Amino acid sequence: MTQTRRKFVASTVALGVGAAASAMPSTSAMKPYPKLVHHVFFWLKNPDSKEDLNKLLKGLRTLEKIETVKGVHIGVPASTEKRDVVDNSYHASELLFFDSVEGQNAYQVHPIHKKFVDDCSHLWEKVVVYDALAV
Amino acid sequence: MTQTRRKFVASTVALGVGAAASAMPSTSAMKPYPKLVHHVFFWLKNPDSKEDLNKLLKGLRTLEKIETVKGVHIGVPASTEKRDVVDNSYHASELLFFDSVEGQNAYQVHPIHKKFVDDCSHLWEKVVVYDALAV
Repeated sequence: MTQTRRKFVASTVALGVGAAASAMPSTSAMKPYPKLVHHVFFWLKNPDSKEDLNKLLKGLRTLEKIETVKGVHIGVPASTEKRDVVDNSYHASELLFFDSVEGQNAYQVHPIHKKFVDDCSHLWEKVVVYDALAV
Repeated sequence: MTQTRRKFVASTVALGVGAAASAMPSTSAMKPYPKLVHHVFFWLKNPDSKEDLNKLLKGLRTLEKIETVKGVHIGVPASTEKRDVVDNSYHASELLFFDSVEGQNAYQVHPIHKKFVDDCSHLWEKVVVYDALAV
């Protein structure tokens, strides 16, 4: 298969997306993602309510305006193969990239994030958060 | 804060990273991530073994060579604030982006992925997988 697109890869080098290509080791055509991944999974109180899901997704989309948020992927469970190890019981997924732990800390107390929690926390019954730092 | 870097955002438009900037709606400077996020968390059998962790991380790094893998972030738990909702009990995190469910299916049966499982599955005692499709 011909590889016509650039791949992206997380790097231990703390670079922004724009500056990354020229500064990465030249061993591949990859550019780094921001170092810190913050991935949150939500389980709704009313899992059959499309309205509640849409309210939550709308709220999640406001988070990209926060300055320290460097990348956003808002999703729902994908129709990949059902396997014992796959947890597809959640209802919405919020993946954010930050350059650093400090950026994630600033996000937690940002007014836009606080407004999201105020507006939407009544919608979910469970949240699981994973924070991973590139190595 | 001045926003000097491009942000990236997942999009329902199935575009590759390279082609995306010009095709996205011009409402922001954001470019889309590939649609499908595949995020895997590993718990080691020997959580105190740096050697086992390094073997696993080395194995995970081989996966970026698979053609349908469009982005990679390999990580370990970040030192973010300890909160009840944060699960930092895992030992390694593998985040891969794909353009589609089909790309993820092709990855599952790819020889490089099978070799990774053969070489490394004795290292972990638990795996949890989340697949999320951008909405």
